[in-house]
Amino acid sequence: MSDGRQEQPDPARRRLSRRHLLLGGAAAGIGAAGAVALDLAVKAGAAAPARTAEPMVSGSDTVPFFGAHQAGVDTAPQAHASFVALVLRDGVDRAGLRRMMRILTDDAARLTQGDAALADSEPELAVVPARLTVTFGFGAALVARAAGTAPGWLKPLPAFTVDRLEPAWTGGDLLLQIAADDPMTIAHATRMLLKDVRSFASVHWVQPGFRRSAGSEKPGTTMRNLFGQVDGTANPVVGTDDFSALVWGPADNPAWLTGGTGFVLRRISMDLDKWDKLDRSGRESAVGRTLATGAPLTGTREKDVPDFAATTALGFPVIPEYSHLRRARSEDRSQRIHRRGYNYDDTPTGTAVSNSGLLFVSFQADVDAQFVPIQQRLDTLDLLNQWITPIGSAVFAIPPGCAADGFIGDTLL
Amino acid sequence: MSDGRQEQPDPARRRLSRRHLLLGGAAAGIGAAGAVALDLAVKAGAAAPARTAEPMVSGSDTVPFFGAHQAGVDTAPQAHASFVALVLRDGVDRAGLRRMMRILTDDAARLTQGDAALADSEPELAVVPARLTVTFGFGAALVARAAGTAPGWLKPLPAFTVDRLEPAWTGGDLLLQIAADDPMTIAHATRMLLKDVRSFASVHWVQPGFRRSAGSEKPGTTMRNLFGQVDGTANPVVGTDDFSALVWGPADNPAWLTGGTGFVLRRISMDLDKWDKLDRSGRESAVGRTLATGAPLTGTREKDVPDFAATTALGFPVIPEYSHLRRARSEDRSQRIHRRGYNYDDTPTGTAVSNSGLLFVSFQADVDAQFVPIQQRLDTLDLLNQWITPIGSAVFAIPPGCAADGFIGDTLL
Repeated sequence: MSDGRQEQPDPARRRLSRRHLLLGGAAAGIGAAGAVALDLAVKAGAAAPARTAEPMVSGSDTVPFFGAHQAGVDTAPQAHASFVALVLRDGVDRAGLRRMMRILTDDAARLTQGDAALADSEPELAVVPARLTVTFGFGAALVARAAGTAPGWLKPLPAFTVDRLEPAWTGGDLLLQIAADDPMTIAHATRMLLKDVRSFASVHWVQPGFRRSAGSEKPGTTMRNLFGQVDGTANPVVGTDDFSALVWGPADNPAWLTGGTGFVLRRISMDLDKWDKLDRSGRESAVGRTLATGAPLTGTREKDVPDFAATTALGFPVIPEYSHLRRARSEDRSQRIHRRGYNYDDTPTGTAVSNSGLLFVSFQADVDAQFVPIQQRLDTLDLLNQWITPIGSAVFAIPPGCAADGFIGDTLL
Repeated sequence: MSDGRQEQPDPARRRLSRRHLLLGGAAAGIGAAGAVALDLAVKAGAAAPARTAEPMVSGSDTVPFFGAHQAGVDTAPQAHASFVALVLRDGVDRAGLRRMMRILTDDAARLTQGDAALADSEPELAVVPARLTVTFGFGAALVARAAGTAPGWLKPLPAFTVDRLEPAWTGGDLLLQIAADDPMTIAHATRMLLKDVRSFASVHWVQPGFRRSAGSEKPGTTMRNLFGQVDGTANPVVGTDDFSALVWGPADNPAWLTGGTGFVLRRISMDLDKWDKLDRSGRESAVGRTLATGAPLTGTREKDVPDFAATTALGFPVIPEYSHLRRARSEDRSQRIHRRGYNYDDTPTGTAVSNSGLLFVSFQADVDAQFVPIQQRLDTLDLLNQWITPIGSAVFAIPPGCAADGFIGDTLL
């Protein structure tokens, strides 16, 4: 699935094959010989299980849980995600945190492989993993309770002039990022994990988001946000040294965070009604990209490198100075991030016909060195600021992955 | 797609094939000859377009909009649905209703076929229909404004003792049921349609729901609710005379509703925390079915006919008198409904770890004759009532479908 993730033990693989049979999936209708062949194919590390023509069943696809890094960072984004922030209860000390993370790790590992949680009250809902990943993040207060050293960037982001942060969407001590291609899988996993954590922490906020469904588009298609923009083109490529350096470091982080990364979530309200009043060329100028393909205004394909020097016949830059593309881009290649955001679309209130926006999510080894300079440039001058407002903000440290006999956070706790 | 639905005009079919090519779907990588073959296959009414092995792209699948009946009733349930109730603005008269329904019909027809709405501000978001259906329902107030005759059942349901109805989830003048296999498709379609209707009506409630994602399970698998129960087994089979009689009638409905049906939505809060305290056999007794397969306690397979006469060695009924299955089932075969519900899972508040339930949705030609007796039996005695509470309720008349030159509601307006 990703380099750096350790091999899944064989029993899990055998369960996977059995589950394929149970769900009537890839192996449906084939005999024992075929099942063995599938098992071998899975063991050989084939990217995806072979499929028969019909029915296509992908609910049994799994992402390994254990490994050097947590899953859900370099994992190809699932269709749905729920971001849950918890606040620790008074009196939960280092030993309590250790118990909490052991329990959470154990159940997350089970659920991501399509197995019931240890005390699963609805085990029938656990049989469709649908690429479930559970990614844990630690806030500054949790690290302090653990008597650990926090990285310098593990604190609220500097205040930006565009911010209109609401406390209800801001901060938190413990993050659960629960993502899967199936919303039912997320509902069940979220409930099981929140039950685990109930005596240690209470829910501060829950932010569900979505992208296109798995199978709606060609895999690897860059997502569009609800403005219709192609969003996230400049991401580093998973599996490259570039990705690894930007996301996993090295960075000036405490030792317990080696193999981990930094997480930023910004809840960005998008004023679709106001956006509606802008014509197509106005929208493209604001973004610096075409709406049809996401190509920079100086290019024809999404991934074309923008030519900021190009000028129009009248001598104006083709990609305006105030465009989002230009403001987000730095000359310094280390000032980059890995984006993994989701759209949200909540119930409108009053006369509005939408309550929509983007759960901007980025991973970077050093939030201060990578994310903050980008946001500062956007804060100073970005035409898009006329239509978007950050209303929530949170920063978490994503600890490394763990071995099958360890638990997430065991380098800190 | 369904019997009774008229043939889709050829231009739409050609668009479908082109879209398959654009999305890199079924036709990806095949030449003109293959595209023609696909086109012919689609014209021949093949159930689903042929798929190549990888990548599997289903976002271009469409459900015909025009026909004798509205889509979204006998359509195989999509993974996601949003139910929107609107309240008419003062002064919107019959002519205004006609204008509103013409505009809504036109855009719904476009969007369901993967085309942009007439004044689509984000046409790039319209290219993935993902089996989008838009189904319109009329409340009593709308029929009155149209100076039409309402069916006798088009009114609030009788009060049930279990009800704890909240006005925020109850009633409404116009219903939009927007369903698709892709949440992004629903977000875009909902916004386009709410913009259409803005000057005629305001939003009363929005209730999003979900099932398993398309592709997660074998097609045709009965959904499970968040209690883990197999839910909806007893539905009539789409395409049979039985289905047609139960859903489309004949019934004692006004002439404008011929080809239409009745719609009930009950927002049923499910107390998962309390349900947790019940052991597995207690749960199975409450439901009258096994949790593992959904089979009645007297059977082994989901669709087995329950044997209410069967008794245990001690002489007690195997399927208890108070079980949901027994209470929901009538000796009178005409007292049946077509269920098409969705789960909901909203953000918990306070100390709760979930705010979850079922959007119970049923279609039936005569709500009073078919739905009400079932609910009355459940109201009197159903052990499940200990864990579920209806907190919202709405009844709408679903007018028939329309021809390509008509509009939904043209038999009334």
